[in-house]
Amino acid sequence: MSTLTAGYSDVRATNLSAVLGFLRANAPCSRAAIAGGTGLNKATITNIVGDLIDRRLIRETEQTQNKVGRPATLLELDGSAYAAIGMEISARGLTAIAYDAAGGQILRWHRSGPGRGAGPDKTLTATSALARRAMAAVEATGREILGLTVGVPGLVDRDGTVVLAAGLGWRDFPLKPRLLDALSHPTFPVSVDNDANLSALAEYRYGPFAGTRNLIQISGDTGLGAGVIADGRPLQGNLGYVGEVGHLRIAPDGPLCGCGRRGCLEALAGIPALVRRLRDDSELDDLQLAVEQVVAQASAGDSKTVKALLETGSWLGMGVAMLTNVLNPGLIVLGGYYATLGEWLLPGVEKELQEQALAPQAGGCSVALSTLGHDITAIGAVARSLDQLDAGRIPG
Amino acid sequence: MSTLTAGYSDVRATNLSAVLGFLRANAPCSRAAIAGGTGLNKATITNIVGDLIDRRLIRETEQTQNKVGRPATLLELDGSAYAAIGMEISARGLTAIAYDAAGGQILRWHRSGPGRGAGPDKTLTATSALARRAMAAVEATGREILGLTVGVPGLVDRDGTVVLAAGLGWRDFPLKPRLLDALSHPTFPVSVDNDANLSALAEYRYGPFAGTRNLIQISGDTGLGAGVIADGRPLQGNLGYVGEVGHLRIAPDGPLCGCGRRGCLEALAGIPALVRRLRDDSELDDLQLAVEQVVAQASAGDSKTVKALLETGSWLGMGVAMLTNVLNPGLIVLGGYYATLGEWLLPGVEKELQEQALAPQAGGCSVALSTLGHDITAIGAVARSLDQLDAGRIPG
Repeated sequence: MSTLTAGYSDVRATNLSAVLGFLRANAPCSRAAIAGGTGLNKATITNIVGDLIDRRLIRETEQTQNKVGRPATLLELDGSAYAAIGMEISARGLTAIAYDAAGGQILRWHRSGPGRGAGPDKTLTATSALARRAMAAVEATGREILGLTVGVPGLVDRDGTVVLAAGLGWRDFPLKPRLLDALSHPTFPVSVDNDANLSALAEYRYGPFAGTRNLIQISGDTGLGAGVIADGRPLQGNLGYVGEVGHLRIAPDGPLCGCGRRGCLEALAGIPALVRRLRDDSELDDLQLAVEQVVAQASAGDSKTVKALLETGSWLGMGVAMLTNVLNPGLIVLGGYYATLGEWLLPGVEKELQEQALAPQAGGCSVALSTLGHDITAIGAVARSLDQLDAGRIPG
Repeated sequence: MSTLTAGYSDVRATNLSAVLGFLRANAPCSRAAIAGGTGLNKATITNIVGDLIDRRLIRETEQTQNKVGRPATLLELDGSAYAAIGMEISARGLTAIAYDAAGGQILRWHRSGPGRGAGPDKTLTATSALARRAMAAVEATGREILGLTVGVPGLVDRDGTVVLAAGLGWRDFPLKPRLLDALSHPTFPVSVDNDANLSALAEYRYGPFAGTRNLIQISGDTGLGAGVIADGRPLQGNLGYVGEVGHLRIAPDGPLCGCGRRGCLEALAGIPALVRRLRDDSELDDLQLAVEQVVAQASAGDSKTVKALLETGSWLGMGVAMLTNVLNPGLIVLGGYYATLGEWLLPGVEKELQEQALAPQAGGCSVALSTLGHDITAIGAVARSLDQLDAGRIPG
């Protein structure tokens, strides 16, 4: 059986974590400031800081405090030793991003295709080729890779199998084991996660409201999904299938959804549903182009477009209100094409939220538009490894 | 600022917690068994066990292991030093329960009224009178009180103000501060929480599926609410308003709900809604009697009753499916009158759950009926204080 026990290593990890976390928020700063901010005593700070300098996770800077009295040597994060790789597989294509441990970007690559029609095997080949190139590029900088995480738009179980990814046309594909094989079982952790879960991690670490302890990220792209940070931790659930809001049933007799059910949020408020309502052709081979057309029409004041956007916002608001009644978030961030279309969607979203949330003032929930752009899943995939470092789990 | 730092006291709390938790699951057992189960070394076990014996939280028993070799002295939980009090305010009346630290019941009292019409001030007076009697009764046993928690059917903010309790007719009543005054500010913690949150704690600690890390408790009484244990922790949310599933909008043009909106889950699947569908008189002064009549009619095979129950189960299942899509629980426990009516409700619940959950096999979610009865909120209120003890936070 496994029970929680604390020993020296846990204390050390917690203290490392406290010092790194303080520096990430406040660097550059002095040892005395770290002691004041973390509550750790001087001997512990000296010890932990020394260790973190040895591991090249922090470093002393030439810069000194602009105050009276003796200048203190300041500390800042050092990104020279470690880096993390985040990737995304989407219907649009592949993305690979690497940040160093101080948050500095090492690479950000996009590759179109293989796309929905290609099937999982071909996509795996392309993904592992891109991963190998990213690994080589990071290693060429002399940094150790902390981890590689891949986000996919679908249900991912705890073993890294993609159980269902409608937008890719995948079902029961063991992505993580296959990727491990293709990468010859690297020494660092490789993981696979749902794109919306990773997007929530990205907002929690890098967004303008980073650190909001009850935060939901809702992304509109080919699908509609949500990632949930609850009480400061990413929600996992029983098998990892949290935040499948796209298939909340909003209208029992609503339009048919791609999942075969009727009246799902995705069928009403999804981006493809919006685009189809405004265009005669049912082909949606370029969603980005279609959204750009919607923006152009809405900006020109086209009444049919503005009305469709308001309706989409209202449907989305019904989903947002449901999430609010269940999870009482402090912040809901709309991302993907919802951010692009935000100015037309927000009025409907906020009206429904205020009307349908039971708690006064929607339980203190604000709605904001994401500023992290379309790479948010890959950024969240990087964050996943860097979060481990911040939790004091340092290799070696 | 507050940051997480670990020191000697945290390690000690974690180790105390591990030993108490192991004993709660496995007592009576030997020091060697505790060492094996917790991974702690012999010196630490000797030290922690000695401390817990001194604090009268565990004790040695005369009983010895029925094995070959030298008999080992066994350890078990000792309830003689501490106890916790849990109370519930509902439209039915007041409940007070006290358990000792080993889970032994000291008292379980029910008092009818003051009821919905009485208003919060009169109810506060009755509640504090009952609390004082319970405190005196516990103190008369020589035990120190770890805490007193009161559950109420409504939104409770983090300061213990009942923001909204439709079933009691309360709005913005500062129950916790008023109760603290009425009890002359006792030295132990006093807290107020939502009834469904406490019910989830009760299931997580005492139910037949105790320890299920993703568990939702849904109670049907005068209202309909849910408490959520997610990834092993009670979900709090931004202001404490988690699990307000009664007001998820299931049918946009559905019946009017007590909250003023249309088509809420409570208006469709709530127990009062069920009873009203089956009776001509709209008065519901005795919900328990009305439910007993429903049970009698259903048992006799009355087709109108059986049909209404199946429909209620289907509506409830739609709410359950929504929770499953958002939270991916491993277990949903139906409590209150839903447990009483469970045999007729479950088919509809399970059908909708399987049909409307996106994840295969509803993400591994089972539905079960609560066995903890109508005192579950007060039991959960006791659990809240005892959980603190189990987390290693021991007074003094």
